Amino acid sequence: MSRLSLNTATTKNITLADAVTLSAEAGLTHIGLWRDRVAEAGLDKAVRLVSDAGLSVSSLCRGGFLTAPDEAGQAAALADNTQAIVEAATLGTRELIMVVGGLPAAAGLIGGTAVDPSAPGAKDVAAARHRVADRISELIPVAQEHDVRLVLEPLHPMYAADRAVLSTLGQALDLAAPFPAETVGVVVDTFHVWWDPALEASIRRAGTEGRLASYQVCDWNLPIAADALLSRGYMGDGYIDFETITRWVAATGYAGPVEVEIFNREIWESPAADVLATVKARYEALVEPHL
Amino acid sequence: MSRLSLNTATTKNITLADAVTLSAEAGLTHIGLWRDRVAEAGLDKAVRLVSDAGLSVSSLCRGGFLTAPDEAGQAAALADNTQAIVEAATLGTRELIMVVGGLPAAAGLIGGTAVDPSAPGAKDVAAARHRVADRISELIPVAQEHDVRLVLEPLHPMYAADRAVLSTLGQALDLAAPFPAETVGVVVDTFHVWWDPALEASIRRAGTEGRLASYQVCDWNLPIAADALLSRGYMGDGYIDFETITRWVAATGYAGPVEVEIFNREIWESPAADVLATVKARYEALVEPHL
Repeated sequence: MSRLSLNTATTKNITLADAVTLSAEAGLTHIGLWRDRVAEAGLDKAVRLVSDAGLSVSSLCRGGFLTAPDEAGQAAALADNTQAIVEAATLGTRELIMVVGGLPAAAGLIGGTAVDPSAPGAKDVAAARHRVADRISELIPVAQEHDVRLVLEPLHPMYAADRAVLSTLGQALDLAAPFPAETVGVVVDTFHVWWDPALEASIRRAGTEGRLASYQVCDWNLPIAADALLSRGYMGDGYIDFETITRWVAATGYAGPVEVEIFNREIWESPAADVLATVKARYEALVEPHL
Repeated sequence: MSRLSLNTATTKNITLADAVTLSAEAGLTHIGLWRDRVAEAGLDKAVRLVSDAGLSVSSLCRGGFLTAPDEAGQAAALADNTQAIVEAATLGTRELIMVVGGLPAAAGLIGGTAVDPSAPGAKDVAAARHRVADRISELIPVAQEHDVRLVLEPLHPMYAADRAVLSTLGQALDLAAPFPAETVGVVVDTFHVWWDPALEASIRRAGTEGRLASYQVCDWNLPIAADALLSRGYMGDGYIDFETITRWVAATGYAGPVEVEIFNREIWESPAADVLATVKARYEALVEPHL
């Protein structure tokens, strides 16, 4: 269990303090944090909670949302990501997971500044990707100053319009290529990338290029949930071949934590201790033997 | 309007006879057929209906579902696809759209033979792809005998588990590569491929290799519908940049029909004449100028 890390998104309805206690009592040594739980506790208290429990932070989720076409939106994104970088450093993790953002036309759907869908460029996915590259470039010195890595997360293509115009691991590596590997990495999240015909080659490339910063596991459940964001499931409940993907990740020499990050309403409504017990059992059966 | 083709899936609740009449009265010269409407009318009557109305068939949907791991399942798939090839030829179209099928573990979800998800290989996506290639290879002589093209359709990755382990246009072209271009082609359906960072290059490649057999348009709506299959929308209602993708298709020299194929409950429940009027207006505004 030395590499298993519970991501607080899996137990969304409990406080950071409770997630920390639960993880420590279960014998885990890492925890993956979302910024909402950190903000709720307060950054300084979050640091104390985690370190008093003897845990280390496997990653902070999330920075990103870098696709705003207007100057005000871009300035706001830089300010928010600078804050996220500081939070990651303060929490003692190098790994800041980045969800890069979707099309301007869909920004209103996720609480961003709504852009008229008929405005020029509002649905231009290539232009949105260029803006992501520009913002990453601007964030490099901030990340370097705080010794934090910007960890690009390719999201499943079903989120390409509203959440991330970065859809494959290969594309994430191409985006990362101009920047130092210690400053821009990538994460393999099984839910997002399992379907990709180039996955094996891209994982190998991430290893060779020294950019594999995090491995997150959860399953692809069907039918897709009414809120598509909540379709993730316990390993073994869906259709992902964890043995194969975990072997590919292990073959790169990746020796870091394995985060379990599940957005799922039914799991959120279950007692957190039961959730962690299931997570541990599934991890032990389906993931750990192949690491 | 000479290139617009109404796919009968867009007007699912009317008969083939009504869809044919509607198309002809609207001045269209093509129609895209699903096999369910053809079967309902009877093949010979379907042929007469279409030809009496002066229409030509732009494509027949669909063959495929080639991933069965067992001999009986494979024999059934070959028999069904042979029948589909004969139907396409009889209806006077060369283009048989192929949805290749998903993982054995998910076959039960779409009415196939359920496979125990814990059985060896039940979630092995690479093995499923190999079986697709094997079945395509076996179907080549049948397709050649009837002068029909097997048109591989990459489906959106959100259908990779249950409907198609073929997820990108590049992957479809790789799968087609060993076979003659007049016997194995590919279709660009905007809904399935709009998010792909390699789309421009893959469309160009499809053109260069002489495999671009069909262009289907509809939009990517959000939120994803409760039945994920029904998330398609009228062009302009979602997030796809039709100008850009249509220009890429046109740049290959593609001069064939443009099919509008929308699975959407609300559209199915609207009067078919209204649906076709909206399809025509959106096509005229958003697609035709860029062809």
